[in-house]
Amino acid sequence: MSDSKDPKASNQMWGGRFASGPAAIMEEINASIDFDRKLYAQDIRGSIAHAAMLGNTGIISAEDCDKITHGLNTILSEIESGSFVFSRRLEDIHMNIESRLAELIGPAAGRLHTARSRNDQVALDFRLWVKEELQRTEAALSGLIGAFLDRAEEHADTVMPGFTHLQTAQPVTFGHHCMAYVEMFGRDRQRVRHAIEHLDESPIGAAALAGTGFPIDRHMTAKALGFREPTRNSIDTVSDRDFALEFLSIAAIAATHLSRIAEEIVIWSTPQFGFVRLSDAFSTGSSIMPQKKNPDAAELVRAKTGRINGSLVALLTIMKGLPLAYSKDMQEDKEQVFDAAESLELALAAMTGMVRDMTIRADRMKAAAGTGYSTATDLADWLVREAGLPFRDAHHATGHAVALAEKRGCELADLSLADLQAINPAITDGIFDVLTVEASVASRQSFGGTAPSEVRKQIAWWRARN
Amino acid sequence: MSDSKDPKASNQMWGGRFASGPAAIMEEINASIDFDRKLYAQDIRGSIAHAAMLGNTGIISAEDCDKITHGLNTILSEIESGSFVFSRRLEDIHMNIESRLAELIGPAAGRLHTARSRNDQVALDFRLWVKEELQRTEAALSGLIGAFLDRAEEHADTVMPGFTHLQTAQPVTFGHHCMAYVEMFGRDRQRVRHAIEHLDESPIGAAALAGTGFPIDRHMTAKALGFREPTRNSIDTVSDRDFALEFLSIAAIAATHLSRIAEEIVIWSTPQFGFVRLSDAFSTGSSIMPQKKNPDAAELVRAKTGRINGSLVALLTIMKGLPLAYSKDMQEDKEQVFDAAESLELALAAMTGMVRDMTIRADRMKAAAGTGYSTATDLADWLVREAGLPFRDAHHATGHAVALAEKRGCELADLSLADLQAINPAITDGIFDVLTVEASVASRQSFGGTAPSEVRKQIAWWRARN
Amino acid sequence: MSDSKDPKASNQMWGGRFASGPAAIMEEINASIDFDRKLYAQDIRGSIAHAAMLGNTGIISAEDCDKITHGLNTILSEIESGSFVFSRRLEDIHMNIESRLAELIGPAAGRLHTARSRNDQVALDFRLWVKEELQRTEAALSGLIGAFLDRAEEHADTVMPGFTHLQTAQPVTFGHHCMAYVEMFGRDRQRVRHAIEHLDESPIGAAALAGTGFPIDRHMTAKALGFREPTRNSIDTVSDRDFALEFLSIAAIAATHLSRIAEEIVIWSTPQFGFVRLSDAFSTGSSIMPQKKNPDAAELVRAKTGRINGSLVALLTIMKGLPLAYSKDMQEDKEQVFDAAESLELALAAMTGMVRDMTIRADRMKAAAGTGYSTATDLADWLVREAGLPFRDAHHATGHAVALAEKRGCELADLSLADLQAINPAITDGIFDVLTVEASVASRQSFGGTAPSEVRKQIAWWRARN
Amino acid sequence: MSDSKDPKASNQMWGGRFASGPAAIMEEINASIDFDRKLYAQDIRGSIAHAAMLGNTGIISAEDCDKITHGLNTILSEIESGSFVFSRRLEDIHMNIESRLAELIGPAAGRLHTARSRNDQVALDFRLWVKEELQRTEAALSGLIGAFLDRAEEHADTVMPGFTHLQTAQPVTFGHHCMAYVEMFGRDRQRVRHAIEHLDESPIGAAALAGTGFPIDRHMTAKALGFREPTRNSIDTVSDRDFALEFLSIAAIAATHLSRIAEEIVIWSTPQFGFVRLSDAFSTGSSIMPQKKNPDAAELVRAKTGRINGSLVALLTIMKGLPLAYSKDMQEDKEQVFDAAESLELALAAMTGMVRDMTIRADRMKAAAGTGYSTATDLADWLVREAGLPFRDAHHATGHAVALAEKRGCELADLSLADLQAINPAITDGIFDVLTVEASVASRQSFGGTAPSEVRKQIAWWRARN
Repeated sequence: MSDSKDPKASNQMWGGRFASGPAAIMEEINASIDFDRKLYAQDIRGSIAHAAMLGNTGIISAEDCDKITHGLNTILSEIESGSFVFSRRLEDIHMNIESRLAELIGPAAGRLHTARSRNDQVALDFRLWVKEELQRTEAALSGLIGAFLDRAEEHADTVMPGFTHLQTAQPVTFGHHCMAYVEMFGRDRQRVRHAIEHLDESPIGAAALAGTGFPIDRHMTAKALGFREPTRNSIDTVSDRDFALEFLSIAAIAATHLSRIAEEIVIWSTPQFGFVRLSDAFSTGSSIMPQKKNPDAAELVRAKTGRINGSLVALLTIMKGLPLAYSKDMQEDKEQVFDAAESLELALAAMTGMVRDMTIRADRMKAAAGTGYSTATDLADWLVREAGLPFRDAHHATGHAVALAEKRGCELADLSLADLQAINPAITDGIFDVLTVEASVASRQSFGGTAPSEVRKQIAWWRARN
Repeated sequence: MSDSKDPKASNQMWGGRFASGPAAIMEEINASIDFDRKLYAQDIRGSIAHAAMLGNTGIISAEDCDKITHGLNTILSEIESGSFVFSRRLEDIHMNIESRLAELIGPAAGRLHTARSRNDQVALDFRLWVKEELQRTEAALSGLIGAFLDRAEEHADTVMPGFTHLQTAQPVTFGHHCMAYVEMFGRDRQRVRHAIEHLDESPIGAAALAGTGFPIDRHMTAKALGFREPTRNSIDTVSDRDFALEFLSIAAIAATHLSRIAEEIVIWSTPQFGFVRLSDAFSTGSSIMPQKKNPDAAELVRAKTGRINGSLVALLTIMKGLPLAYSKDMQEDKEQVFDAAESLELALAAMTGMVRDMTIRADRMKAAAGTGYSTATDLADWLVREAGLPFRDAHHATGHAVALAEKRGCELADLSLADLQAINPAITDGIFDVLTVEASVASRQSFGGTAPSEVRKQIAWWRARN
Repeated sequence: MSDSKDPKASNQMWGGRFASGPAAIMEEINASIDFDRKLYAQDIRGSIAHAAMLGNTGIISAEDCDKITHGLNTILSEIESGSFVFSRRLEDIHMNIESRLAELIGPAAGRLHTARSRNDQVALDFRLWVKEELQRTEAALSGLIGAFLDRAEEHADTVMPGFTHLQTAQPVTFGHHCMAYVEMFGRDRQRVRHAIEHLDESPIGAAALAGTGFPIDRHMTAKALGFREPTRNSIDTVSDRDFALEFLSIAAIAATHLSRIAEEIVIWSTPQFGFVRLSDAFSTGSSIMPQKKNPDAAELVRAKTGRINGSLVALLTIMKGLPLAYSKDMQEDKEQVFDAAESLELALAAMTGMVRDMTIRADRMKAAAGTGYSTATDLADWLVREAGLPFRDAHHATGHAVALAEKRGCELADLSLADLQAINPAITDGIFDVLTVEASVASRQSFGGTAPSEVRKQIAWWRARN
Repeated sequence: MSDSKDPKASNQMWGGRFASGPAAIMEEINASIDFDRKLYAQDIRGSIAHAAMLGNTGIISAEDCDKITHGLNTILSEIESGSFVFSRRLEDIHMNIESRLAELIGPAAGRLHTARSRNDQVALDFRLWVKEELQRTEAALSGLIGAFLDRAEEHADTVMPGFTHLQTAQPVTFGHHCMAYVEMFGRDRQRVRHAIEHLDESPIGAAALAGTGFPIDRHMTAKALGFREPTRNSIDTVSDRDFALEFLSIAAIAATHLSRIAEEIVIWSTPQFGFVRLSDAFSTGSSIMPQKKNPDAAELVRAKTGRINGSLVALLTIMKGLPLAYSKDMQEDKEQVFDAAESLELALAAMTGMVRDMTIRADRMKAAAGTGYSTATDLADWLVREAGLPFRDAHHATGHAVALAEKRGCELADLSLADLQAINPAITDGIFDVLTVEASVASRQSFGGTAPSEVRKQIAWWRARN
């Protein structure tokens, strides 16, 4: 009817690092202490708040509460000084601390677990960590925004080609281009702030999944831990990893932004473009080709996008179809978030450094902006605005002018008035006011446009918010 | 120095559906009208607002403005009545409408394109569409929350097993379980609301990428189109697809929630569990096995998670490393969003239907909750709380009691007081007040706990917000 | 004990496109005819083979077999001529054909379903389709390889800069660069061939999941349908979608290769690089800037990577954790594969066209190769090889030479012998044989190296295999 | 014209772990020694083969060759004994070993780098590692196949319900169900073998990207390192990571298979199903509920799917759109592969253990198979086969019989002959030969069907191949 296996026989199947059989495999797959030790500070903070509440509500004695608090602070010191010995046999950070607490203070240690379970404890620790990481991310984004604001201010008048399809389209300023990134990272920061708002509820007190019969005060622990309020449903509380998924989503979008400026830096650093020169700190050279500067940091920032997208996919896949409440699958949440957080932090720091340190080669930018008939649109717009031509005719005339300039091997501004009037007699010498890249840029004063005056307004707006 | 290819020769390489050569391939890969026609209403709405602003600022005449508006409204009627003929040769929805407008009103049509480009036009249309889709999603989430609130109220006292690792852990109520989903979908709704806030800026007027020299009023168009304000940087405006990425991220998290209840429904519908019976509307049968009900709708909802995650990955990958400003890669944004939006809408509707229609088999749930010693924790807690035992001793005693019950083939509540006192003499007959599933559930009155009284409080809290 | 809902009341909840309530939702989520009609030819082919086998083994009469075959051929004609009326109410392609067959031939139609189920039928149809698509992909890859071989042959001597980190590293030939893509797409083709080998087993006869008691001959149907053999396990047969996952994996890797050449084309087409000029067929222009050529096709090919990666993620996610045997989730497999297949086909065709048609600007390539001290390695290697210097010393001397050339504003080959001997007296005028880009390229005759002679060998090797 | 930044000022921006400024960030983002040290054995093996070839071809002296080989073997011992000191300042494993070699043998160390670059060296090391990992994976798959074959043999006659939609469909045997997994993991193994064939080319000798002018013999190194042949294009060689992408694709599909059996184990272990009981080694218990066994290992195996899918997405994203040849982005390849490899190895080992050790509760399986009218199809098939009824009528009659049994509260086999003849007079008592689950199972003797005789044939077929 049923069967069993000879454990000795089956153990003979295992070789290599699993030679000792099932026990070795299970420890390897099950233990989380190698990565969740990162949560030690949150775990201790959460336990201290829980103990204080248990003492305050009379669930445990004031004396036990003191012992516990003192013991936990001792453990904190031990960990931070490096003297704490982590054990894989104790599986996770919670058991490592709990076991040490019992050594330090004896039976009172057990009372800490009144009205609490591993499920709400890990939900608390991880949520606290993610909240703090979001706060670090917010600061790092502000730093990067600051770097772009500084460069934008410095280069509000620096003309460069504006690209579409990586083809020269219209002249813009480098300051304006920098401000595009300020908008992107500003949106990221806004998403980070809202994510903090979304997760700002305390899990502790949900217990295993059903809440508890002990007369706990979850509002007290929520307040002590800096949360807005306690969570409202104990089953959801231990099942929920939205805060991790939302962190990863936001990180993926921010990484996408980083990959765009990284790509631009790689392209701008080529000898063919030559728009920027990276500082030595953020490039690597070659002993044999001293003039060569490889944009390694930019390439690595670009690559981090893949890594963070991967973590997002991993956790979305892990959470798919999990029945409530806690399933062990969820233990795989932390490494994804830790890895993505580290990648994002590093990429933000590296990009802030690159943006601050890179040399802008304004002459190369301007020269590139002035080729390729980048002011053709200005000519067409002038014909509509000043000469009252219908759009179609204005475009037609502009096409002729560009063709003529191409034939002559010159730019539009180099054509003579006679040449232009031959194309359309309505043209006056007022046209030359719009055909230079500086005039083109200066004219685009619509809200959010590339005119230096507009760019400076937007810098001021952001300065007030950074 | 350079070379060229004989076009006729190279055309001979193509067979099958590309027989006509490069032109056929290019039309196939380039044309977007097959999917972007979905944006017709947004395109026309945007053009009307733009024309009104051009008229109002004197950039075009009042007469032209009227002609344009009238022409666009005619086109809207034509499309909605099905008489409009879309052309693939005209590539996209913008050119299809523009070309028809020229037929209808002549040269004035050209003036509509003053101070505007395809780049800001498509950014506007798509953003408007996503905003409206987010509003539809918000409503659909409210509908699903409502369905769960109704079932929660109905079953606030219905006891079921609370699972961890899909093993019976502690008794909970079905109402409490429903409210876990209310929390999840409530968070989704909050994210949707913030996403609307994040995208609520009008792109129109950014022009090709640099803004414009025409004296446009972007605040006027922003207001007319229901946006909070215009975007602040024209380069970013035409380069940005954050609103699409954020929609997809939110959809992926919501789909993950849907996959969890879908999985539960699949498991609950098995003969082995038998906790729910799906309505005929949301299951399929077998002519040969009339009693069989396949949970097809739940399985399809579960599968949509994959589809939506896929769209998120697609767009994140597409946007990776794109230099500013517009690149044609971005044309691939729409199909991903449209597909994910349709999947999410459908999954939300189907789940709302399933939740509303399914029959809850409370007897089966209760019977399952009462087996497996699900009140063992209650026994241990009683020993701590009432008999003052240290945790470790309480757990030890509970283990003994469970082992005894297992040996007797009965549940904990069926053990005699003598049996229990033999395990620990501190036990009194008060213990029997906590060993039934009803007592267990009723006792968990901590904030957010499973006690019916608590569940009802949370239902009321949510009713006020739905 | 249990409960039920008033269907009328719940129907009132539905609005919009689901106004008619659950039935409308279920049809929308459940029906697959909108996409699985693509399988009509495979479905009919499979049914004809199945009928022939049933007739041959005497399970059905020869007369019924003839009727069925004739009816199916009629349906095939109807579908291909466009006269067949598909019905959404009949859900899928199988029921649409089955229902029409019953109309055409009466009760004999029912006999076709002997010893067969929808589960093995859909597994067969889809597998046949994927096999054929893999064969189409193999041909398309060969076409692209052919295009690269032609360009490689034409440009076996054309010198261009070889890049690492998008910085000039060493001169290579454009032919050599083309051959790198031949290797990539050659590997893709090899994977395609193995994938065909992996899936080449016939599912038909697995029935619902358990096989059948009818004396069918699965080897006969396998042979008739062009499969190597029948599948060996009926449960696996209806549960398996490996062939779809493997197709998507291979497509994702091939798309990654396509994205790399697409990216290069975008960069090479910039005015700054100017290495290639796209044909009009694969770029789009601007009425206002007639000289502008946007590499739209290359950008769209690059974007398809995202789309195909997304489909792979979608199906991997869908299949995760599905218990055996068939689950309805698996219905979501086809759209992902169809979409990825179409994207890949289109991208391969477009890239083949671009590669064939683009103009190579050999002068620009050579000029770029000759700047940036790209032969510095050749100088160092010469010092090691000819002058017997240890590596470290050779590198040191080369660094000095480059620094001197940089100071002089010239290239290495422009330094005088005296200059070079001042750096290291062991240098003779033999050095000048290696400092030009042509000499550098010609010298790299190691197997697989960039020397034109080597490139031609590899072209010949591939010609024999394409 | 250009600008520069005061490094001191910008350094003041950095806090936290990047306090020392750009240098700290760059080291953190750039150094790979923390993970690529895993390649030490491959690096040393590759260098020894390269040195032997250099010696053999006379490019270096026999004496230098001996010194190098001896030095590298010393380093190997140092690393394996734990005495080697890794330095982050030396960035990667190659520089760490190179630097130590110079310490040990002096200037001869530099000669090792003749005709070699970091680019082909890392391509070699990583490819060797992936090849070996594929071989380990092949062995692990064989181990898991072996475990399933053993259980299949043991349970070739054990009847269980066959599920579709997780609803009972038809009886099958547990042996047959096990063999479905043998097919899946057999396909994985076939893919692994082909992947080895695809990557079996030696990269060494491609040098930086262009090959080399030294008269190296790449066939000699290829042979020494166990590769079939050298790669054919040096640019591709240093740009290619197909072998990593293919490993990840295969791992993702194998993980999907693992997730399916893991899901089944989780469901089968519930008290409601009770089909299997996990061994203590692969489950975790509860001190308080001694009867509880959480299927932690199965859940963690299920979760690994997400992790591996994430790594696949990461590397696909990283490789997207990289221009040739080497870009630093590619440094992010290794961690993804190492992590996925470890996850897959662990998951395969854990699943092999679970499958070997779990107790099959054949009584529970059989009881479940016998309920739910699982032999209804057998009844219908009998009516077609024995009584010559058309399919539609046979289905109709079966539906009646099931309805009657449902009304009586019994199974089909419990109906009387009179009852059945009242439904259709053609029924004889031969019908009872097919209505039991044993008869049903035994009858399905089609190739690959669930009949024990068929299952045993397939076991024998696989035994010969495992």
